[in-house]
Amino acid sequence: MSKFWSPLAGSLEPYVPGEQPKDKTYIKLNTNENPYPPSPKALEAIAAAADADLRLYPDPTCDALIQEVARCYGLSPKQIFVGNGSDEVLAFAFAAFFDPAKPVLFPDITYSFYKVYAQLYRLTPRLIPLDDEFNIPVGEFTSGGDHGGIILPNPNAPTAKLLPLADIVAMLEANPDRVVIIDEAYIDFGGESAVKLVPDYPNLLVIQTLSKSRSLAGLRVGFAFGSEELIEGLDRIKNSFNSYTLDRLALHGAVASLQDEAYFRETTEKVIRTRERVARQVAELGFRGTESRANFLFISHPSIAAKDIFLRLREKGVLVRYFASKRIDNHLRVSIGTDEEMDAFIAALRETVEELQ
Amino acid sequence: MSKFWSPLAGSLEPYVPGEQPKDKTYIKLNTNENPYPPSPKALEAIAAAADADLRLYPDPTCDALIQEVARCYGLSPKQIFVGNGSDEVLAFAFAAFFDPAKPVLFPDITYSFYKVYAQLYRLTPRLIPLDDEFNIPVGEFTSGGDHGGIILPNPNAPTAKLLPLADIVAMLEANPDRVVIIDEAYIDFGGESAVKLVPDYPNLLVIQTLSKSRSLAGLRVGFAFGSEELIEGLDRIKNSFNSYTLDRLALHGAVASLQDEAYFRETTEKVIRTRERVARQVAELGFRGTESRANFLFISHPSIAAKDIFLRLREKGVLVRYFASKRIDNHLRVSIGTDEEMDAFIAALRETVEELQ
Repeated sequence: MSKFWSPLAGSLEPYVPGEQPKDKTYIKLNTNENPYPPSPKALEAIAAAADADLRLYPDPTCDALIQEVARCYGLSPKQIFVGNGSDEVLAFAFAAFFDPAKPVLFPDITYSFYKVYAQLYRLTPRLIPLDDEFNIPVGEFTSGGDHGGIILPNPNAPTAKLLPLADIVAMLEANPDRVVIIDEAYIDFGGESAVKLVPDYPNLLVIQTLSKSRSLAGLRVGFAFGSEELIEGLDRIKNSFNSYTLDRLALHGAVASLQDEAYFRETTEKVIRTRERVARQVAELGFRGTESRANFLFISHPSIAAKDIFLRLREKGVLVRYFASKRIDNHLRVSIGTDEEMDAFIAALRETVEELQ
Repeated sequence: MSKFWSPLAGSLEPYVPGEQPKDKTYIKLNTNENPYPPSPKALEAIAAAADADLRLYPDPTCDALIQEVARCYGLSPKQIFVGNGSDEVLAFAFAAFFDPAKPVLFPDITYSFYKVYAQLYRLTPRLIPLDDEFNIPVGEFTSGGDHGGIILPNPNAPTAKLLPLADIVAMLEANPDRVVIIDEAYIDFGGESAVKLVPDYPNLLVIQTLSKSRSLAGLRVGFAFGSEELIEGLDRIKNSFNSYTLDRLALHGAVASLQDEAYFRETTEKVIRTRERVARQVAELGFRGTESRANFLFISHPSIAAKDIFLRLREKGVLVRYFASKRIDNHLRVSIGTDEEMDAFIAALRETVEELQ
């Protein structure tokens, strides 16, 4: 604690990203990146944008990208917001829609950054416990009560479980005066998106990202979809923070990526096929897992501690994610890599089980 | 005002960036961009980074860039912070170092985003009026009193006037328990940087940007220089907001730009030479101006209203910046373009003066 820090800076417990060790080359299955490269068209567009115009500010209103997102998702440009990764969009949304005077509802097991945003904006989280099978207790989000809004990922992370759209509709209808944020970072790997509900529910904000299904974690582009008044709320926060959050390269690359629908379908389908195969293989090794609709598995072994497996896999050059958190400290989150990477993972996991059992 | 907005979102008056009209091609002297392209080495590095690795998250600790900034400025990596443009660095600094319980001091005429940040973080600004010649009254910043910190640009914007380093030392010594932020967006155009004071003053934060002197407004990279405890304060806010604010392309481009010292010197010197020449020419046309140490002029005509000149220049295809704000509403801010652009500006201005006089 420094005497120069504000009370806010002193009070925070910042987020810790998944490790990015540089000591050797790992099979990296710990941060849910896509194993396939971005669309070649996106890479070409970025290289072409590396020109003299970089001396100029980007378009602060991101018109070209917003038009393309609108076209892609069948909404109006006024229903779209874009930001520097979905993490930035989430941060703006916490500031724009949640009131420090009322608790914000989210699951106890979920994206761990939500708690951090709550701290940053002095909000009070009300954590809703998942049931023992990691299901979201929908009734807890539809029973009214004095709260200030809801946020949850769908599929949830790190559980990988998908909530049907009917449950989200129930939450929207039970909370007509409060914002319900659905964080769809992983929706393209087999879930049904709530974007189609946007025209009907002014209280719905859906957040997506190019980081996972479009293989562009390194470019930092996220979107929000919502009613005009919600988008205006996000714009108010953004334009009080940084008018130019997306650089010219990100704007160009994102447009080209969205235009390459065929590549997007091909790579997400490959990830889904690999996931289904690996889910069967880990079950054969004795692991239990949730039914994943994301680009990762959430698994647990009945007799070997997750932490021991994590450390042993790390020694063998395979990085997965281990969370030292209550209720999930006997689980591992394993991102879906290429088929070759997952073959190596399964081989290392088989060895590990034999060694530790 | 929407019922869905938080009290914060409803209370803001967001920043309005300089206009970027798309109706025709203007000579664009309104947003202080550099007229010369970025270093060719930066552009090559960006194009080379548009590869398959964009599927991976960027390094959240920005090690390579921080190492390069440290080398360039002769500081330790622990004294460096990097962000998504200096606007983001400023926003983080307001959150990290200023306390809502105490006023933050800045000049009445200054970068207009400071007031917006103050709103965003619920701070109370205490505006210190510049004198009639737009000098910063240093005594107002050194006389103690119950305040929570200081921020000012050097050179100031939009006045273009430079404060000597001795005045900044006086502020630092008079406020040993409060953070003094010097926003050096324009320092490379002839000012003496306070970066050299960083090792001696733990309360000093210096902020710079690649947007102006490195011709990379479109890439969004800013830095802060300060004591380890100040840098840690910024890191705490950043990692509570977005762990990955700089994308892979920005990280690569920024490193290469900083390595090309020769290009940087050549282009900043060209801008300075053009500025000096244009300053003489506008004086010959009857304008009065401050002594600029930035990449823009701040000028006023004794008998023609600035707003009329602004509008007439716009009709003639030359965009400059006009501020409809008290005390400076009879001034124009004119960015320094290429020699050809400034010849066209002077010709248009000469015509305008003849037409309106």
